[in-house]
Amino acid sequence: MNFASDNAGGVHPRILAALGAANAGHVPAYGGDRITRAAQDRLRETFDAPDAAVHFVASGTAANALALSLAAPGWGKIFCHADAHIHTSESGAPEFLTGGAKLVPIPGAGGRIAPEDLIAALEANGRDSVHAGRNVALSLTNATEWGTVYDLDELAALTAIARDHGLICHMDGARFANALAALDVAPADLTHGAGIDILSLGATKNGCMGVEAVMIFDPALAEDFEFRRKRAGALVSKHRYLSAQMLAWLEGDLWLQMAAHANAMAHDLALGLSRLPHVRIDQRVQTNAVFATIPHDLHVRAQAAGIVYHPWPHSQRLDEGEPVSIRMVCGWDTTPEDVGATLEALA
Amino acid sequence: MNFASDNAGGVHPRILAALGAANAGHVPAYGGDRITRAAQDRLRETFDAPDAAVHFVASGTAANALALSLAAPGWGKIFCHADAHIHTSESGAPEFLTGGAKLVPIPGAGGRIAPEDLIAALEANGRDSVHAGRNVALSLTNATEWGTVYDLDELAALTAIARDHGLICHMDGARFANALAALDVAPADLTHGAGIDILSLGATKNGCMGVEAVMIFDPALAEDFEFRRKRAGALVSKHRYLSAQMLAWLEGDLWLQMAAHANAMAHDLALGLSRLPHVRIDQRVQTNAVFATIPHDLHVRAQAAGIVYHPWPHSQRLDEGEPVSIRMVCGWDTTPEDVGATLEALA
Amino acid sequence: MNFASDNAGGVHPRILAALGAANAGHVPAYGGDRITRAAQDRLRETFDAPDAAVHFVASGTAANALALSLAAPGWGKIFCHADAHIHTSESGAPEFLTGGAKLVPIPGAGGRIAPEDLIAALEANGRDSVHAGRNVALSLTNATEWGTVYDLDELAALTAIARDHGLICHMDGARFANALAALDVAPADLTHGAGIDILSLGATKNGCMGVEAVMIFDPALAEDFEFRRKRAGALVSKHRYLSAQMLAWLEGDLWLQMAAHANAMAHDLALGLSRLPHVRIDQRVQTNAVFATIPHDLHVRAQAAGIVYHPWPHSQRLDEGEPVSIRMVCGWDTTPEDVGATLEALA
Amino acid sequence: MNFASDNAGGVHPRILAALGAANAGHVPAYGGDRITRAAQDRLRETFDAPDAAVHFVASGTAANALALSLAAPGWGKIFCHADAHIHTSESGAPEFLTGGAKLVPIPGAGGRIAPEDLIAALEANGRDSVHAGRNVALSLTNATEWGTVYDLDELAALTAIARDHGLICHMDGARFANALAALDVAPADLTHGAGIDILSLGATKNGCMGVEAVMIFDPALAEDFEFRRKRAGALVSKHRYLSAQMLAWLEGDLWLQMAAHANAMAHDLALGLSRLPHVRIDQRVQTNAVFATIPHDLHVRAQAAGIVYHPWPHSQRLDEGEPVSIRMVCGWDTTPEDVGATLEALA
Repeated sequence: MNFASDNAGGVHPRILAALGAANAGHVPAYGGDRITRAAQDRLRETFDAPDAAVHFVASGTAANALALSLAAPGWGKIFCHADAHIHTSESGAPEFLTGGAKLVPIPGAGGRIAPEDLIAALEANGRDSVHAGRNVALSLTNATEWGTVYDLDELAALTAIARDHGLICHMDGARFANALAALDVAPADLTHGAGIDILSLGATKNGCMGVEAVMIFDPALAEDFEFRRKRAGALVSKHRYLSAQMLAWLEGDLWLQMAAHANAMAHDLALGLSRLPHVRIDQRVQTNAVFATIPHDLHVRAQAAGIVYHPWPHSQRLDEGEPVSIRMVCGWDTTPEDVGATLEALA
Repeated sequence: MNFASDNAGGVHPRILAALGAANAGHVPAYGGDRITRAAQDRLRETFDAPDAAVHFVASGTAANALALSLAAPGWGKIFCHADAHIHTSESGAPEFLTGGAKLVPIPGAGGRIAPEDLIAALEANGRDSVHAGRNVALSLTNATEWGTVYDLDELAALTAIARDHGLICHMDGARFANALAALDVAPADLTHGAGIDILSLGATKNGCMGVEAVMIFDPALAEDFEFRRKRAGALVSKHRYLSAQMLAWLEGDLWLQMAAHANAMAHDLALGLSRLPHVRIDQRVQTNAVFATIPHDLHVRAQAAGIVYHPWPHSQRLDEGEPVSIRMVCGWDTTPEDVGATLEALA
Repeated sequence: MNFASDNAGGVHPRILAALGAANAGHVPAYGGDRITRAAQDRLRETFDAPDAAVHFVASGTAANALALSLAAPGWGKIFCHADAHIHTSESGAPEFLTGGAKLVPIPGAGGRIAPEDLIAALEANGRDSVHAGRNVALSLTNATEWGTVYDLDELAALTAIARDHGLICHMDGARFANALAALDVAPADLTHGAGIDILSLGATKNGCMGVEAVMIFDPALAEDFEFRRKRAGALVSKHRYLSAQMLAWLEGDLWLQMAAHANAMAHDLALGLSRLPHVRIDQRVQTNAVFATIPHDLHVRAQAAGIVYHPWPHSQRLDEGEPVSIRMVCGWDTTPEDVGATLEALA
Repeated sequence: MNFASDNAGGVHPRILAALGAANAGHVPAYGGDRITRAAQDRLRETFDAPDAAVHFVASGTAANALALSLAAPGWGKIFCHADAHIHTSESGAPEFLTGGAKLVPIPGAGGRIAPEDLIAALEANGRDSVHAGRNVALSLTNATEWGTVYDLDELAALTAIARDHGLICHMDGARFANALAALDVAPADLTHGAGIDILSLGATKNGCMGVEAVMIFDPALAEDFEFRRKRAGALVSKHRYLSAQMLAWLEGDLWLQMAAHANAMAHDLALGLSRLPHVRIDQRVQTNAVFATIPHDLHVRAQAAGIVYHPWPHSQRLDEGEPVSIRMVCGWDTTPEDVGATLEALA
């Protein structure tokens, strides 16, 4: 029973099969092949964004940092949640690939930025000058790092504020499919329809082997992307294998089915956990992660039972007798049996 | 009466004269001249630091960002006060010159970091990993951006914590002379004696035309400095004119006299302001800046009287009838008459 | 019949199968899994380099630019062949990831640097100064961009010169297996035994889907690699799928068999071409590429027959009636039938 | 007698006096002062360029690298002479400040690029692709590093080629005044009139203490300059002292008089040298530098007589009995007596 991360999971059989199917013959490298064009077209259709530029990379950090580099020069400020992956877990990649941009962390419950806090941060950074730099971008993670989501209205409110202040709006969609499944809305509505200019669309965590898309809804922002990707060393040569994953992921709404399944597993897991004594569910479970605080002895029991997860935050001290805050992530390949066995072991 | 900034002031006549005296003949460029060697030696003596590497640049931002680049790689985290100049006013220079390092802002009254807040920030960033990056440096501003100072014990306490966590300690000494004059301690005690590894020593604000020194007390950190300076475009060719300023600044303790004078002027100004009705002095006046909150009509009167200063923070809204928070900075060339006339105009 | 590039080819069935086999269960992400450790160990064994640091990335440009960033600071000079991929085809990635290093191109027949030309380049760049920068690295491509190889003696001669001048030696081994197969020597002999400090080992072109290894033979150079990889956005999360490719590639000497096959196909193709009237083989065919100059009408005929290759160099003008210089690359999946049919079509 | 460099010389008394005159009172920092506006206006007038953006920095490397960063992204190629200062003597600054651009060195007699060689370099780099990068800029040095000049027709021919290939044209004018004096043409004609888009205008070598202007004739290119300057740490705070130098330099055509004088001194020096036995003048002396090859014993005699100059190129080996190639640079402060005494000592 492994709830460490959706990165710990495997590849969906249909996606694996697509790699085999893509393997026939010789095709142009670097994205000049038909599978790549098909995957790009499919994404444009899926997002009802016929003019979007669509590019593939092999890591989420590359997707985010390259996307942000379209919006932020080295003297730019990027507003994001204090727990945003781009701020906590990308080790300088956004700063490096933008040539020096600064991330402005905004605290907020549940990994979500409140409109008034965004306004406050913009005001506190109101001095758009050669000294202070320029406010250039808002990056929102959906689903958030705490498994919650922004709905359409919430997104629209935030991007409206951003737009009023001249910011470009980026979405870190490492778990976009989970948010989409949770909200049951259209991809277009949750992105450009809600004011998002650039989306990092994660597929790796949700059943792929390693592919992320950058969707640039405003073509004027897209001009340099391919050069930036190459200059960062992020252009994959045998591109068809990225694209084939993406195509299979979208085919027959597999992406949404996998995300909905993962969400459901997390829901069941949280429900079961919440019934255990002295267990507190710390965040509303809207997508595929459960954040809970559990008694120390329960944590010890879980470890002994081989239930894998991370204390969260990582920096937490694990003192005997003190409750432990944990993150448990479900994936497309988490089974009801995994959840059942886990709850049983902890009961 | 101009209290806008110590950058608004002029050059001390003895320093100006030194430029003239340095003008004779031909000398090697780029720091190979005798005046440069003399200035470097004089600084090493003054700071009782015979092994220190000493280099000159023409701007405080270059001094800070280059100094930090010795301590922080692109995946490093630099802890500093939330109001530190390197964080608020250098527009990405530290991030750029380090190749992506992240500044971690720590709030604190009076522009000062409290030891417990440093510890908390280190713990919150405790995950030294390839994702989170590495905690590498502490940067302390002395005197601070709010005119206060860290004394020897306070510095030692902070640098001890830093050292325990493997951090290199940098001091932004844009107004180091003001701190030194306020504390009446030895330069060595306020720097390497208190755990500082690298000092950006500002002379420009305190009576020079444009020269800052980077003093690297640990020679092992200094190896690449000259290459870094050149690569950033910050190596000045006719170096003798930087060095001559520095020599004259140190000669006969001129630097300390100017700083002590500026501090005294600020003290007198604050004392006078504090006696005006509805005026609040917001920070303890330890060096050469006065931070105060004054009634709106007093602000209007000051403007009308040609008294120049900045509302502080810059982002402040100036609504009619509402008190205004301001910063008034004194310099080596602020006269008792300036202070007197100012207080008279506001009385 | 596609000879455009070894990037145009597919994935060997055994490697594809290995991806499927690796797909079971949950494992730690980011390289903490057992398959990754096994692949690293296997490479250390294969190269008789027990202390080597071994890391995987998804693109050759990332491998090269990250490897070079270990050797070259922003003020460093990297000596390489004028036709080196790092110089002609990586669009600023080495310069960017090193923070400004300069590539010094050295001309030479057959894509190879002659010792005397390396010495001349070092002398012409002899001024190791803060203005000129520092000479820091030699990068050799083996097999070269022109399909030729450096043998052990030639490598040793070049790296000895480099070492005498304080340079770190990097090998771009995008087609290392082809060189190895051509020379029939041990991996250790062709790398650290011949003075190479860091190897970019390419597997993608030779039957993999997308994985390259960076092997750092001197552990002292390796310290920052993982941070650099992350900061560049090049850390792949589901790492097991990179590693599984690498393991299967090495298993049973598959890599060498594929390379030897590709080399043999190129040999046969060149032999056949050389018998055609007015066709000139331009480079000694030592590995898997054939460089030839053919009559214009033959080029037209080849196009019509659907034989795919690139005019080489790319910048060449294709004037009617003028001979055309071309590159034809064979891969692990080039068949004798492909070669036969091609020669027949051109006969 | 010092002919080492025009950087070895001092500051003209009128420029020194201007610093004193600028010293009165308090003025806005960072270029908001009246002297700065006056100097900017004066440059716009002098160059007949009312729309030009004009900015000041303290070093020539900053001027060049920042200017180039307006024209070249990290994936750009900048064409320049093989001996261009930006290529040989700025230690990665252009590469760093552009985020990875590549300088393409073009050989050519006398430090000058011949049109056919520019065309050849453009063709050899004709593959404008995501792999090769983009051809974006031409940088011409005038006067060149070898003391020669491009005249109006030569410049126009080169910039026309550049424009046809979509390049932005930069001029490194570290010794622009010397070229202007030599050619006796208008500043406008030698810059934007001849197709130059951005000029780095050097004043330091020609009688100033430390100021260079960047003149951006096409305002569309200028947008980010001030942010770039700050991000690089190159914004000088007490800006009036840069600007005052520039104003005094231009006043009464002092710049041209100093340059013409330096040129005349070099002419006389070369004439005298050319009459010595076994001395060869290696470059046409058009501005203020003399490049000559002299017998080894004459070199020894010169050293003994305290005549200071550099062997040129620096990397040259000085074998006994072998002729020595040298550079002798005259400045605004080289006197006829210096030249006379030098020639006498060598006669």
